[in-house]
Amino acid sequence: MRTGVWLIGARGSVAVTSMLGASAVRAGMAEPIGCVLESPELHSDALPAIGELVFGGHDISSVPLVKKAAALGEAGIVPARLAVAVQDVLLEIEQDVRPLPDHGTQAEVADAIGADLDRFRRRHDLDHVVVINVSTTEPAPPPHPAHADLDALHAALDGPEPVLPPSALAAYAALRAGCPYVDFTPSTGARLPALDALARAQGLPYAGHDGKTGETLVKSVLAPMFRMRNMKVRAWSGTNLLGGGDGANLAEPAANAAKSASKQRVLRETLGYTPQGETRIDFVEDLDDFKTAWDLISFEGFLGTRMRMEFTWHGCDSALAAPLVLDLARLTAAAHRAGRTGPLTELAFFFKDPLGEVPHALSEQWQVLRAAVEALG
Amino acid sequence: MRTGVWLIGARGSVAVTSMLGASAVRAGMAEPIGCVLESPELHSDALPAIGELVFGGHDISSVPLVKKAAALGEAGIVPARLAVAVQDVLLEIEQDVRPLPDHGTQAEVADAIGADLDRFRRRHDLDHVVVINVSTTEPAPPPHPAHADLDALHAALDGPEPVLPPSALAAYAALRAGCPYVDFTPSTGARLPALDALARAQGLPYAGHDGKTGETLVKSVLAPMFRMRNMKVRAWSGTNLLGGGDGANLAEPAANAAKSASKQRVLRETLGYTPQGETRIDFVEDLDDFKTAWDLISFEGFLGTRMRMEFTWHGCDSALAAPLVLDLARLTAAAHRAGRTGPLTELAFFFKDPLGEVPHALSEQWQVLRAAVEALG
Amino acid sequence: MRTGVWLIGARGSVAVTSMLGASAVRAGMAEPIGCVLESPELHSDALPAIGELVFGGHDISSVPLVKKAAALGEAGIVPARLAVAVQDVLLEIEQDVRPLPDHGTQAEVADAIGADLDRFRRRHDLDHVVVINVSTTEPAPPPHPAHADLDALHAALDGPEPVLPPSALAAYAALRAGCPYVDFTPSTGARLPALDALARAQGLPYAGHDGKTGETLVKSVLAPMFRMRNMKVRAWSGTNLLGGGDGANLAEPAANAAKSASKQRVLRETLGYTPQGETRIDFVEDLDDFKTAWDLISFEGFLGTRMRMEFTWHGCDSALAAPLVLDLARLTAAAHRAGRTGPLTELAFFFKDPLGEVPHALSEQWQVLRAAVEALG
Amino acid sequence: MRTGVWLIGARGSVAVTSMLGASAVRAGMAEPIGCVLESPELHSDALPAIGELVFGGHDISSVPLVKKAAALGEAGIVPARLAVAVQDVLLEIEQDVRPLPDHGTQAEVADAIGADLDRFRRRHDLDHVVVINVSTTEPAPPPHPAHADLDALHAALDGPEPVLPPSALAAYAALRAGCPYVDFTPSTGARLPALDALARAQGLPYAGHDGKTGETLVKSVLAPMFRMRNMKVRAWSGTNLLGGGDGANLAEPAANAAKSASKQRVLRETLGYTPQGETRIDFVEDLDDFKTAWDLISFEGFLGTRMRMEFTWHGCDSALAAPLVLDLARLTAAAHRAGRTGPLTELAFFFKDPLGEVPHALSEQWQVLRAAVEALG
Repeated sequence: MRTGVWLIGARGSVAVTSMLGASAVRAGMAEPIGCVLESPELHSDALPAIGELVFGGHDISSVPLVKKAAALGEAGIVPARLAVAVQDVLLEIEQDVRPLPDHGTQAEVADAIGADLDRFRRRHDLDHVVVINVSTTEPAPPPHPAHADLDALHAALDGPEPVLPPSALAAYAALRAGCPYVDFTPSTGARLPALDALARAQGLPYAGHDGKTGETLVKSVLAPMFRMRNMKVRAWSGTNLLGGGDGANLAEPAANAAKSASKQRVLRETLGYTPQGETRIDFVEDLDDFKTAWDLISFEGFLGTRMRMEFTWHGCDSALAAPLVLDLARLTAAAHRAGRTGPLTELAFFFKDPLGEVPHALSEQWQVLRAAVEALG
Repeated sequence: MRTGVWLIGARGSVAVTSMLGASAVRAGMAEPIGCVLESPELHSDALPAIGELVFGGHDISSVPLVKKAAALGEAGIVPARLAVAVQDVLLEIEQDVRPLPDHGTQAEVADAIGADLDRFRRRHDLDHVVVINVSTTEPAPPPHPAHADLDALHAALDGPEPVLPPSALAAYAALRAGCPYVDFTPSTGARLPALDALARAQGLPYAGHDGKTGETLVKSVLAPMFRMRNMKVRAWSGTNLLGGGDGANLAEPAANAAKSASKQRVLRETLGYTPQGETRIDFVEDLDDFKTAWDLISFEGFLGTRMRMEFTWHGCDSALAAPLVLDLARLTAAAHRAGRTGPLTELAFFFKDPLGEVPHALSEQWQVLRAAVEALG
Repeated sequence: MRTGVWLIGARGSVAVTSMLGASAVRAGMAEPIGCVLESPELHSDALPAIGELVFGGHDISSVPLVKKAAALGEAGIVPARLAVAVQDVLLEIEQDVRPLPDHGTQAEVADAIGADLDRFRRRHDLDHVVVINVSTTEPAPPPHPAHADLDALHAALDGPEPVLPPSALAAYAALRAGCPYVDFTPSTGARLPALDALARAQGLPYAGHDGKTGETLVKSVLAPMFRMRNMKVRAWSGTNLLGGGDGANLAEPAANAAKSASKQRVLRETLGYTPQGETRIDFVEDLDDFKTAWDLISFEGFLGTRMRMEFTWHGCDSALAAPLVLDLARLTAAAHRAGRTGPLTELAFFFKDPLGEVPHALSEQWQVLRAAVEALG
Repeated sequence: MRTGVWLIGARGSVAVTSMLGASAVRAGMAEPIGCVLESPELHSDALPAIGELVFGGHDISSVPLVKKAAALGEAGIVPARLAVAVQDVLLEIEQDVRPLPDHGTQAEVADAIGADLDRFRRRHDLDHVVVINVSTTEPAPPPHPAHADLDALHAALDGPEPVLPPSALAAYAALRAGCPYVDFTPSTGARLPALDALARAQGLPYAGHDGKTGETLVKSVLAPMFRMRNMKVRAWSGTNLLGGGDGANLAEPAANAAKSASKQRVLRETLGYTPQGETRIDFVEDLDDFKTAWDLISFEGFLGTRMRMEFTWHGCDSALAAPLVLDLARLTAAAHRAGRTGPLTELAFFFKDPLGEVPHALSEQWQVLRAAVEALG
């Protein structure tokens, strides 16, 4: 099953780590550590292999992939020797990375995106092309009546004013071009009634939101622990320090608010109530992709005795995200092939802010994922 | 269902917190926070209520319960006002706390223990008496041939030399007196073939080992998280600093070794391999019952990128253990009533070093527990 | 030497802990731990004894001191038994705690404050009265021309519009009434040219700003450590989680900004440059007076190798501040007696944001303090 | 001033990082970060420049320096590009790294060491050769009467049994050859009365012990902070996790004991009492040279209120040690030239377990060092 992976933000750290890593795994130069579908329990022949993935994408940046890979190697995000070893593959992928269209009405931009997707599919004779957004986080868009109605949306996109934020426009274009859409960011993506209608009309699945790579991953096992032990969490405060492109963007208040809300949701969903405290995101350029999160949890045990737990997570964001991007591409392609349409709620395991009424405890999400993989065949 | 709870180590912090807390809950002065069976998902009418538990026990100490409770209040382990409020109840329980028999052969000691259990049962007209060991940790005993054979054991206990460590002798005496036995410590308890045979012959259940109250509890959700995400844990090192009676005892190398082994088991069982690193236990008298554990986890993600996680757990041991003691008393009594015999492997949720071939991931243990509670009726 | 201590914010946690603690020390019920002047190296007969301090003050709250002390005991901020033991002393002090005047022009308010100070001095026949601001943090005031000129200030205070923020008005009133003024908060206090002129005209000393009790205290030894070792600090980020009255107030953006700026200053002053990163203050009501600060320091060693240090500080703000309030009262009274006027720059040891061109490394500040104490006689 | 630096353990991580770093600094490829003598306050023309240092040494290993440097680059301990850039210099130094003599009586071994030192001095026409022990930690040696008397020592070394541990034999040989000796490890080194007598007889200085690179460095500023604030430290527990060659060696109980004692000394010396708690060293191979230390400090403030502080230090041992080795070589050569004999107590700043009755607070040690540098001219 030849599967295309079209990355919005194709020259960013997550995208290039994904491309580079898939190439290294295919060449036998690296083990697929962190690729969930490579666990024995989740193996399935219904899934395309990592080696079958073909990459392309859009970006507003024009930094060559090889140069970006070298920078990732220099910064210790990927092994420097791998960045060198897969140069040829990156040069090939370079042919399929195109500037993000941005001229004309939003309808025209969507058409141009669709044309790029068609060309990619034909050029590589692909069975499926999954579009995955790994670009930087957007602020939440202002509401617009056309978000709720597909016909109104078609009409509005022809007008001179932007109606959709970039992530939603990409989702619109992808679905129109017959491609499932996955949003790895907290941005809007396909999460609008009009786009859900479009996906169903086109017989396509979509997934999201916001890859669960670090602090929230830990929260999704610790919060259930407190619930299973029937202890009362009084306060849960988190601080995230991160550099890199996404860090700079998240320092903007609007994007920050979108992300922070996404990060606290797991507490309410797993504990059944919202403890005091907030999740902060601070930009510290020097940390680059090596993010540090610190959480303080204040809880109450038997007879009201107060206790505390702290954790610090020193993670490399791209190294955590990239294998999940590969997993999502494979799962979404297989779901498409299996005829699934609408939101893939069974992929909640991968997301901070998953679609649908789904469990938020990691172990329950894993059971759901496992059942879904088994159902694939 | 009138249920007796006979605590070995009845004047220790865990025991007195359990008695005091059960009284406070019964009187409506405290909520049963930390009592797992009070979660909505685990409610069952087949279980005796917290208010139906009747306490007694053995101890080598003679500190009055009221005085111990006041000390726990002074130290902030229980609310000082509760220690005062339940004085009358503790004075009543005092009638049923007896010096641990220690004269004559081990057979004679076992008979004396059994006589105390009979008197307790008759005095309060109890349907079931569950014996729970919450005394301090023993060193592992030297092997003895009689451990493997019940008849040989009966004979050997009549001899002048001790054959069983104190916890196993208590288990022997309890089972002979028709009482289920639970070991909340890492000591031997009923974990000998001869005692398993005795339990089955008597139609009695038993449970253990080593209440999972702090660092290991956290490990039992974090290690599965790394496995579910298919990341490779390279090293996991833990340090436990604790004071209190158990701290002093665990500073002894032999007891320390027993406990440390119990604490690392969860990693091997949930990850499928044993990472580098050890678990240390250090005695720091000043910390009293407020234990601090710090763990450093070094792991490898996609393409071998190294990352780290640390956590610090500031817990109050007695406040964490006492509600579990109440849960175990209730579950074991109900299991006894339901005719269960042999090891209660469905109680793995509560233990660091559970009996039988059971899951070690907390969420799986919880599913097993939930099914067991439902099966009770 | 009978010394009065007039606390602005006299019913707050810091003030009541100071009063209660001084009483307990005088009565021999507590040791003066945390009182810097009780170190052998800083002993001086020129200082009034803790037992010679007489307390009074202003507050907008009317909670009785005894009730506040009981609440501090309940919350574990002071020992509950001490809160009971010094009730009589607190009832006496209650006579000297008055509502903060707030009627009429600011000139009239200042007169009313001065009248209260005079009454306190006469009633207790005090040699010196030191006014110390321990009320909650104010936002920085808008600039006003009268801040720079004493005559203009006198005139402006007669007008209908407020010219000075509350802390500066208190400083004005204190200085006019012949009382030295100390600001333990980051608020304006005496830190205006017009008030400096007033202090000098009156022959009075003043001191401040912002008691150095926790995170900044640690920074004032760690930052010099990095400098002495000639290592390059790349980023230093801090998060402060605190509840209590001051926490709620500091959650207000304006007060937060004042405090955060005060807290980063030590880095620039001791390192000679400003590393990346910020200091955050978040309100978490549940933590009450038990503040937790977490700092991440990213630094560069030989050949550019990147390293990290983290610290967590779990402190009780009032228990940290109160002994310093006693120290400052004693030192300022002795300085007044010794004829010192203007800013007491030798007290930089006590403050996050000290007055004057002074060292910010704790050990240098201690040397300066020690020399100043010796110079007292 | 041409200065030789003869390293015992010349093929180890610390030694090779020192050689590589000095070369990189001389070539202008790296800044001397972490070199204390490069701080503006400690600049002195009486010190040899980093570029004037000439390296040689002994080792029992035969791994080529270039290969070791490449391994350090691969592990991220030094920049990989620097390891390549200074290959030529390392190949030159290779000529002066010789197998550690180990044949015959200890007197014969000492003669062979001395001959190597003479050859090195003549070959490079050096004014001074400083011998620095950076080899792995030894267990404490059994006492021997000859340790206390130089004549007895001379005689005993001719016998068939070893009298001195390796570090002390190296010190003996160095001093006999007219070379000052510095011990960067906790081993015995020159710290025997007979060797002190030898140093004085030869007119030579010596220094040590145990480079203060990480956890103890932090302790030497935090413990004085608690003392300056007159707070009572109740317990201070430390855990050090480290891999690398020294880590494996320190896992041996005898070496571990030597090191742990050295690490707790700073508390007693700066606080004036010894708090509860211990310092642990655990070997975790996977951590390699990137050591992590975690300390928990439990302290008591005003009225006995309990508070806590924790810190985690993630340091790279060789990157921390190497610049100090360069500093010590320069300072000891200058002291030799200035005619100093016996223990260089003014270098306490650099050591965990400094010689003589000296201050242990880092800032006081820095003042002493600064005065000593100024006194050099």
